[in-house]
Amino acid sequence: MRVSLFPLSNLPEICDGDDLATLLWDAAARDGLALTDGILVVCQKIVSKAEGRVVRWTAMEPSAAANALAVQTDKDARFVEVVLRESRRVVRSAPGVLICETHHGFVCANAGVDQSNAPGPEYAVLLPRDPDSSAEKLRAALCERGAGPLGIVISDSFGRPWREGQVDVALGCAGFAPLRDQRGQLDRAGRPLAVTAPATADQLAAAAGLLMDKAAGVPAVWIAGLKPSGTGPLRSLLRDPAHDLFR
Amino acid sequence: MRVSLFPLSNLPEICDGDDLATLLWDAAARDGLALTDGILVVCQKIVSKAEGRVVRWTAMEPSAAANALAVQTDKDARFVEVVLRESRRVVRSAPGVLICETHHGFVCANAGVDQSNAPGPEYAVLLPRDPDSSAEKLRAALCERGAGPLGIVISDSFGRPWREGQVDVALGCAGFAPLRDQRGQLDRAGRPLAVTAPATADQLAAAAGLLMDKAAGVPAVWIAGLKPSGTGPLRSLLRDPAHDLFR
Repeated sequence: MRVSLFPLSNLPEICDGDDLATLLWDAAARDGLALTDGILVVCQKIVSKAEGRVVRWTAMEPSAAANALAVQTDKDARFVEVVLRESRRVVRSAPGVLICETHHGFVCANAGVDQSNAPGPEYAVLLPRDPDSSAEKLRAALCERGAGPLGIVISDSFGRPWREGQVDVALGCAGFAPLRDQRGQLDRAGRPLAVTAPATADQLAAAAGLLMDKAAGVPAVWIAGLKPSGTGPLRSLLRDPAHDLFR
Repeated sequence: MRVSLFPLSNLPEICDGDDLATLLWDAAARDGLALTDGILVVCQKIVSKAEGRVVRWTAMEPSAAANALAVQTDKDARFVEVVLRESRRVVRSAPGVLICETHHGFVCANAGVDQSNAPGPEYAVLLPRDPDSSAEKLRAALCERGAGPLGIVISDSFGRPWREGQVDVALGCAGFAPLRDQRGQLDRAGRPLAVTAPATADQLAAAAGLLMDKAAGVPAVWIAGLKPSGTGPLRSLLRDPAHDLFR
């Protein structure tokens, strides 16, 4: 048994309206990959670009709240305005730092608004509006072309509490269960496992992150050798705020 | 280019004093794996067992603090006593939940004290005392046998804020840099990356988690195709509490 990760690197620069499924299908074909019995992890940025989720932040009119937060965080008020429009709430702010909860419920720096690999210095890329739906559309379009069974993960790299550095997490998924609930299964000594529920979607995103490189341009990774089973959505992994002990 | 993950499943039950390096080396040899130019991810539990980090929790004498916390969390006071001895502080407690910061600085459920796959129902397994040192000893012992260059990750599955389920993270590492600091490198458009620093050690742990299964007994995974470079320790990834905005 073996699980293998293949980088899909021969993709063109993605623009609003591009047919991402066809571009990924062609890139996989050029690398001799069949996109069957595995998971395709696609970085959020190319999904967002194909969906037109790009804004010219320098053209924004900052609100009073954005102006105040810009002073506190040492960021451009026009950029902060974009972040606030993508946010449900500000989780933490400090010089250089603005951690927000997005309208989807993701907690991350700048509500996921990112200037790296944007179409130009005046532009920023937003997270997809509904990453689970983006993943399902991509899955269906790839299956139409002859791929599958396959799962899709749309990933982004997030910082996390208590640890330096970023790890890729899943923003959306389709075609497999994002959580393997093993509660009640027996351990090797025959005792039931109390809390074991690996978050498969996030493990896949993190694994793909080993090959995704913002500088080198690897926006998708094919993970072969894992049969997708079950179904999404990823949003089922987001904790009910009432049950989240860390809030 | 390809990265491949191989489960090492043919390991015996590990006991105090076992020579883990030899057992892993032999298991890899049986699977035809050379343990060269890759990373060996080893689950914390077998490292702890080999190091004798197992306690009979039913024999503990609970303190007043343990008794109070046991009532609050609906847990056995003798088990809570073990958890408190492994902890620097209690982060959150509620019925069924006890999240602690360990003496190492890890924030996790029950300070990492775990009954699953323990030697018996009266026993619990603690985290290794110094996982970076455990990783380095394992690396050196494997290199003596002819393995290498290789990196080692000692991993455990942790819950996380805001999301359901667990993902494996690194507790210790050796033989490679746990963080790829790309700050200052250029994105594809030629602009410097501001904050990009993938936490390689945690990505590796999460990737291996795809194949580690508490029920099926896969305590180690060989990740081939990534040349280890740089050096540890993992503890360099733990954020200075003063700089952690989530505390």
